[in-house]
Amino acid sequence: MAYQHRVRIYWEDTDAGGIVFYANYLKFFERARTEWLRSLGVGQHRLREQTGGMFVVSATEVRYLRPARLDDELLVTAQLQAAGGASLTISQSALLQPAGTVLAEGTIRIGWVDALTLRPARIPAMILEAVNR
Amino acid sequence: MAYQHRVRIYWEDTDAGGIVFYANYLKFFERARTEWLRSLGVGQHRLREQTGGMFVVSATEVRYLRPARLDDELLVTAQLQAAGGASLTISQSALLQPAGTVLAEGTIRIGWVDALTLRPARIPAMILEAVNR
Amino acid sequence: MAYQHRVRIYWEDTDAGGIVFYANYLKFFERARTEWLRSLGVGQHRLREQTGGMFVVSATEVRYLRPARLDDELLVTAQLQAAGGASLTISQSALLQPAGTVLAEGTIRIGWVDALTLRPARIPAMILEAVNR
Amino acid sequence: MAYQHRVRIYWEDTDAGGIVFYANYLKFFERARTEWLRSLGVGQHRLREQTGGMFVVSATEVRYLRPARLDDELLVTAQLQAAGGASLTISQSALLQPAGTVLAEGTIRIGWVDALTLRPARIPAMILEAVNR
Repeated sequence: MAYQHRVRIYWEDTDAGGIVFYANYLKFFERARTEWLRSLGVGQHRLREQTGGMFVVSATEVRYLRPARLDDELLVTAQLQAAGGASLTISQSALLQPAGTVLAEGTIRIGWVDALTLRPARIPAMILEAVNR
Repeated sequence: MAYQHRVRIYWEDTDAGGIVFYANYLKFFERARTEWLRSLGVGQHRLREQTGGMFVVSATEVRYLRPARLDDELLVTAQLQAAGGASLTISQSALLQPAGTVLAEGTIRIGWVDALTLRPARIPAMILEAVNR
Repeated sequence: MAYQHRVRIYWEDTDAGGIVFYANYLKFFERARTEWLRSLGVGQHRLREQTGGMFVVSATEVRYLRPARLDDELLVTAQLQAAGGASLTISQSALLQPAGTVLAEGTIRIGWVDALTLRPARIPAMILEAVNR
Repeated sequence: MAYQHRVRIYWEDTDAGGIVFYANYLKFFERARTEWLRSLGVGQHRLREQTGGMFVVSATEVRYLRPARLDDELLVTAQLQAAGGASLTISQSALLQPAGTVLAEGTIRIGWVDALTLRPARIPAMILEAVNR
C-alpha cells in the first residue's frame, strides 16, 4: 500500500499556462515522502541534529500526464521501491480528487549524505528498519 | 476571531540560512486567505469562471520576527480588517506550534480585477456579503 | 553546439541543506530553453497570442551529481535531441563556473498544446524550422 | 543613483492570473540587492564563511502597481536608504523595460545575525564602509 498525502493547489503552484507549474510536482512528491517518513518515526530535522546526516535527491524521473488547476485537491502517493545501503528509490504519483485521474507519476532516488561534507554515507539503521518494516 | 490554517514546513520552504525563506510567508498567508474564503463559500477558480474576475494582491507589509525551520508546524491566521468596494485588507500572522510564538505578521491588501483587462472592478456582492457576515 | 545560458545562485534557490534545492534545476533548464528559443526568434508569450498554442513539459529526467551553493555561477546548456511533429526532446546540463564540473544533467520533453483546451497539437512550422535550422 | 539589475520573466515567475506572482518581486528585489552588495565587494556566501554572520530580512513593504508578464524584461533597482549598526534599509523598485513603467516598489529592511544562533549582531565594519562609500 502506498502512503497517501493530500495537497491543495494554491496560486503559488500555478503558472501563466493556467495550470500547475510542472516543477512543483517535485515539491508535492517531497511533501508526501516527508510525511511518509514522519509516519514511520523519521523526522528529518531531528535526525540531522542527531546523526549529522541528511537525505539529498540524486535522481528524478517524472511524466506529466494531465494538468491540475487552482483549487484542485490532489492525492499524492509515496511507495518504497528499493532500499539500498546508501539510497532509497521511491515511486510517486499525484491523482486528482475525487476522480482519481493520474496527473503525474515518477520515481525519485534519494541518497544519505554527511550534512557537512555532502559525501555519500550509509543510511542510519533505524531509518532502514523503519522503511523496511 | 481570526480564521486559522495549519502549515507544515518542508525543504521547499527553507533557504541556506537554515530557516524559512521570508518570501514564503506570503505563500503561507495566501493559503490561509484562500481557505478562509473557501470556508465562506468563495472558491476563487470557480468565481473566475463565473464572473470573469479575480483577486490580485496590491500591497503587502510583513515583519519577520523569528525564524521557522524544517518540520515546524505553523498556525497561520487571516482576519478581515477592512472591506471596501474594490479591495479587502486582511491582517495575518504565522505562529509556531504548539508554543504560539509569533514568527511573522503583516497586512495584505487584495483588489478585485477583471481577469482579462486586469482593470480594478467592484467586488461581487456575494463575496462582500460573505466576508462581512 | 549546445546553447549556453548563465545562471547565478541566489538565496531563493537554496534550501536548508545549504545547497540548491534540486527542483530548481528544472527552472534553470527552462530559463536556458526559453533563451535558446528566443535566440531562434521564438518568443513564447507572443506566439501564444498569435497561435493560441504553447509548450507544456511532458517528461523530465534529471540526475543531480554535485551541489551548487549561494553565489555560485552556473552555465546551463540546452541542445535539441529530437524534434517530432508534436514534441521536442532537449538535453540539458548545469555546469559550475569556471571549473566546468557537471552539477546536474537531464532530458526534458515538451509538447505543443492548444492553450485553451490543453489538447496536444502540431508544433507550428515556424518553430520546427527554427529549431531544425 | 540606484543600483540597477536586469531580470527576465520566465514561466516559473508567473501564476494562473497570467501575470507575475506578487511574492516573486521579493525575489527580484533580493537579486538586485545581492548584485548591489557584490558590486561593492560584499559576497554573502564568502562573508558567512569568514565572519559566521549573514543578513536576514526583517521587514518588507511592497506595493504592486501594474502586472508583468511572461518574457517581459524588468529593471530592478536597489538604493540604500538608511544604514544602522545592525540593519540596513533599502528602497527598491521594478520597472518594465523599455518603457520604464513602475510595476512594484517597496522598502526592505535586512539585519545582520550570527548564522548559528540567529541573534542580531553588529554589521561587520567592511560592509558598512562599503555601503556608505
